[in-house]
Amino acid sequence: MQALRIALGQMEVVPGRPDLNTRSMLDMIESARVKNADMIIFPEMCVPGYFLGDTWEQRSFLRDCEHYGRLVVEASSGLCVLFGNVGVDWSKTGDDGRVRKYNSFFISQNGELRGGDNFPYPFRIKTLQPNYREFDDTRHFYSLRKLAQEMGVQAEKLLQPVNLEINGKLLKLGCILCEDGWSDDYNLEPIAIISSKGPVDLFVNISSSPFTTGKNSKRNRVFSRQVRDNGVPLAYVNNVGIQNIGKTVYTFDGQSTVYSGEGEIIDHCPPFSTELKIIDLNLSGGLRVDGPAAVPDDWDIGSIQLALSYGIERFLSSIGMGRVVLGVSGGIDSAVGACLYTSVLGPENVLLVNMPSRYNSTTTRSLAARLAQNLGCLYTVMPIQESVDRTVQQIVDTPVVSPVSDDVYLSLSSFMQENIQARDRSSRVLAGVASAFGGGFTCNANKSEMTVGYSTLYGDLAGFLAALGDLWKHQVYDLAHFINEKIYGCEVIPREIIDLVPSAELSFEQSVDEGKGDPIVYPYHDYLFRAFMEYWNRAIPEDVLDWYARGVLEENIGCAKGLPGKIFSGPKEFIEDLEKWWGLYTGLGVAKRIQAPPVLAVSRRAYGFDHRESQNGVYFTARYLELKQIILDRRRDSLPQ
Amino acid sequence: MQALRIALGQMEVVPGRPDLNTRSMLDMIESARVKNADMIIFPEMCVPGYFLGDTWEQRSFLRDCEHYGRLVVEASSGLCVLFGNVGVDWSKTGDDGRVRKYNSFFISQNGELRGGDNFPYPFRIKTLQPNYREFDDTRHFYSLRKLAQEMGVQAEKLLQPVNLEINGKLLKLGCILCEDGWSDDYNLEPIAIISSKGPVDLFVNISSSPFTTGKNSKRNRVFSRQVRDNGVPLAYVNNVGIQNIGKTVYTFDGQSTVYSGEGEIIDHCPPFSTELKIIDLNLSGGLRVDGPAAVPDDWDIGSIQLALSYGIERFLSSIGMGRVVLGVSGGIDSAVGACLYTSVLGPENVLLVNMPSRYNSTTTRSLAARLAQNLGCLYTVMPIQESVDRTVQQIVDTPVVSPVSDDVYLSLSSFMQENIQARDRSSRVLAGVASAFGGGFTCNANKSEMTVGYSTLYGDLAGFLAALGDLWKHQVYDLAHFINEKIYGCEVIPREIIDLVPSAELSFEQSVDEGKGDPIVYPYHDYLFRAFMEYWNRAIPEDVLDWYARGVLEENIGCAKGLPGKIFSGPKEFIEDLEKWWGLYTGLGVAKRIQAPPVLAVSRRAYGFDHRESQNGVYFTARYLELKQIILDRRRDSLPQ
Repeated sequence: MQALRIALGQMEVVPGRPDLNTRSMLDMIESARVKNADMIIFPEMCVPGYFLGDTWEQRSFLRDCEHYGRLVVEASSGLCVLFGNVGVDWSKTGDDGRVRKYNSFFISQNGELRGGDNFPYPFRIKTLQPNYREFDDTRHFYSLRKLAQEMGVQAEKLLQPVNLEINGKLLKLGCILCEDGWSDDYNLEPIAIISSKGPVDLFVNISSSPFTTGKNSKRNRVFSRQVRDNGVPLAYVNNVGIQNIGKTVYTFDGQSTVYSGEGEIIDHCPPFSTELKIIDLNLSGGLRVDGPAAVPDDWDIGSIQLALSYGIERFLSSIGMGRVVLGVSGGIDSAVGACLYTSVLGPENVLLVNMPSRYNSTTTRSLAARLAQNLGCLYTVMPIQESVDRTVQQIVDTPVVSPVSDDVYLSLSSFMQENIQARDRSSRVLAGVASAFGGGFTCNANKSEMTVGYSTLYGDLAGFLAALGDLWKHQVYDLAHFINEKIYGCEVIPREIIDLVPSAELSFEQSVDEGKGDPIVYPYHDYLFRAFMEYWNRAIPEDVLDWYARGVLEENIGCAKGLPGKIFSGPKEFIEDLEKWWGLYTGLGVAKRIQAPPVLAVSRRAYGFDHRESQNGVYFTARYLELKQIILDRRRDSLPQ
Repeated sequence: MQALRIALGQMEVVPGRPDLNTRSMLDMIESARVKNADMIIFPEMCVPGYFLGDTWEQRSFLRDCEHYGRLVVEASSGLCVLFGNVGVDWSKTGDDGRVRKYNSFFISQNGELRGGDNFPYPFRIKTLQPNYREFDDTRHFYSLRKLAQEMGVQAEKLLQPVNLEINGKLLKLGCILCEDGWSDDYNLEPIAIISSKGPVDLFVNISSSPFTTGKNSKRNRVFSRQVRDNGVPLAYVNNVGIQNIGKTVYTFDGQSTVYSGEGEIIDHCPPFSTELKIIDLNLSGGLRVDGPAAVPDDWDIGSIQLALSYGIERFLSSIGMGRVVLGVSGGIDSAVGACLYTSVLGPENVLLVNMPSRYNSTTTRSLAARLAQNLGCLYTVMPIQESVDRTVQQIVDTPVVSPVSDDVYLSLSSFMQENIQARDRSSRVLAGVASAFGGGFTCNANKSEMTVGYSTLYGDLAGFLAALGDLWKHQVYDLAHFINEKIYGCEVIPREIIDLVPSAELSFEQSVDEGKGDPIVYPYHDYLFRAFMEYWNRAIPEDVLDWYARGVLEENIGCAKGLPGKIFSGPKEFIEDLEKWWGLYTGLGVAKRIQAPPVLAVSRRAYGFDHRESQNGVYFTARYLELKQIILDRRRDSLPQ
């Protein structure tokens, strides 16, 4: 077989909506037919959606997916339709005793399913099921590996190419699903195995793969190498849209790509947009005449801005919210948030609310007003001091009746009063204003704050979505610069907001005019927290202290060389700081995150479903305690080399 | 081998604390040695704890577990110590590319590990890894099934008895972990396979198995049958304590049990208490002379009360909270909550706060005061009307500045004002009072409310723990009766609280004195919601409507016969009601649960980690829409039979 016209159906998949997704597919199939495509390829799980939680436990929903899948198969006259759906074997059970489900790859042609001639089912199933980060495939789906074990055969036996006849010629298709193409960590390589049963004409990887900073660069490296190893072209089709698992919202960037047998990128779809791309493949090898396509960088702050804007837009649309309220303090986080939401909804649908107490400087109050003016948003000022004073008064003046003594009275420390301010802003003012405005109010917390619970529950940690909750503070600054320079081309975020010391302004101890601010030293702690939270092999105090003792801390966490030496007077102070933040990260921080809003994920590790955690309290390993003692006793000679 | 003295080490496992757990184990080993035990058996994962979230991704924590595991092995002189810990193969990786971890069974004797003679490791590993409900084993641990596949052998080959020498005689031990004994839904039965390699003298199942209503009755049925099938005695050892996965808190009831080869229960440890039980086993068969032991019922409300009290006590202790504040409305939920917390902490550490608005009747206000008096708790009244009025006034009176028009003003509907009341109570009053009192405030929501989001975010859905969040409303009533009759033997919860119509009292439309209350008809909706939420194969509107059409609704959901006919005037009203609640359950209810407090689990399905859900909105299947049309068109003859 020499020439093949394929259509990449980079569709938006709406999770849990087989009806809408099938309609999108039928439309694309019709377009592809008009353009004389031989084959159209849709993403993994494009009928039901991928992140559905425990919806897979609804038998009637499974039958509904089968119903809509049949409509797609019926529409495959004149061209071959490849798509993802749940495949159900009603005669068997999974390990949970429920009906057996497979994450499946359907190949249909002229109203019939293909590929059943050398496989137990009239569809192919996923071999490698990711079970890390946000992925939960093994909870719901039976893998090819388990099926092989049940049948008493090697998994290799079940990995066969699909035989298709197109334009009167035989096409041998390697059909794999998402993780099957990321086999480096597994002891089974589906592509290599199917190749060995070849010659295979074309590999197709249907995926439902969320955006993660740097993921596409890695995919291009991994897939190009695979393709070169096997010399067979590969079409990768990924969906766009957003899907969430409760506490974590993922954007899907599409970026469907076709690789030549030499591993070059022939063509790809743009990120974050629905696209039906027609590509004429020369299966005898070689590039198209126009040569390899350029691939967008996905490491820079620009790609994060794109993902965040897209994610906010689709999330608001999915929950039917057209207006939002943001509390703006005159600080950097709320300013960046205001820009993102305004760019999505337009200034007429964004209401910025400044809520000063006696601790808020005229500096930040006027900056908040300037930001609103620059963006053209609706703006209001609702002071909280009077309400906070009355709350404090009510609590300390109301007698508590005790059956065993005289009435007692409660008292509130200044720290408790700081939290009363934060809750007054969010739960009293913003929640009420948002309902009156006909929308929701945002949570402006960033990842640094979320890590150590530097925020108040039902206060600044409240809101319908934490759009910046997966950005370290230094990334929030990067984004502010990017927005001013690349999006608006002017200082829509006033320069003073960027230059100001970050502060919660909840007491006179946090006066921005005196340069006092947050206890978090972001240029150092951002990187320390990242080592705790994002490293594939997570760092804990034992690792950090060991790096510190061996003088290799900066290179291991990635902060500026010499910085810890400038911040801490010596080991004692370093250790106190380490234990303080570790205590907050694994202590109160967990309790707060349990009740935090959903986070919009961009990193390779976001809070929520991507970071399973238990409220277990603070722990230090035996080796940490030993190391600490050695260091504090200045027995440096006892240190490990 | 004829006689064996075994010690069941039913210890409290503190998750994430290898240091504390090892200390408990060393103490129990010493006691067992003094009592001349031949063998002491500890639970699964008793060194590290079981529900640790992604702590398993910390390499230094794994080394710490190994360190403490070695201390246990070293303590095994003179007796055999069986225990659970993570087993690490530092030379291999799991499917996630991280170092390979096994959920392992260690057998140590005289300072050395046993069982490596017929197995690739000096420890045994779990074969069947649960991956449903709250269980997440496959995310972190490599199973025996995967190991067998990697080695290219049948799993059967790796399932061998452990050969031990005790008192100079050979003992063949079948060592399994938790789920390995619950193999009914798997295509592999570890007990039967190991038996076939026998003769095995004794099976040992080390478990970390949370309390679930009815689970122990089922375990006794399942395990007795297994034992009878194989004719070999079985010792089951489970831990006590609590462990949580963020949003869901589990109690572990222990109830470690020894079964004779005939399947009779020889002896068992009490629920929810640490115990070292010594049992002399006659391995030649037959019961002990004193005959089979009685087993406590774990289906009744008493077992739920026990689990809740234990869970509250351990949870408070684990987070270091010694005092709590409850908002008491005069309604049933807060009354039951007040009783539970008071029984755990004593009345001097419980502060009950009544927060009336103009909508609260003198009836409920005086009932709240009587409850406080009956319990002897601290009590205070903090009215909210003034604060609510001022908030409403501030929101509607403050001009919103628009860059394109005159100032605009917001307005608040009565529904919005209801939510302002609820938030004022929790986020303004209770949160402030709790901090001043030196504790936290509770969330009194029940499962019926949580299902459909009948509660206000940052309002009555706030708090540090939802202790009643896994009880349907009718179970809250059962618990109230149980508390009065069995715990206190008097009406500590005033009878009027139980008899009163349930109401939020947030508007005059919800006047209890006029018999007006919640829109939820608990005797019907509790059962409808349970079918959505708790059924192993979850029901959705398609199933419910089908049952309704076929006249078999009541028997399928379990409510009183004829009840739907009394509530609804006909199919149209029935369908409207069904769609309304389904919409809330899968719509706003999800958004609220994402930010809800942890739930104390008692049922076979609790909200939180046991119920993975996505904020995907409301969906009706094609078959539902068809069925609905048929019913509304009164084309009954078109209905399926």
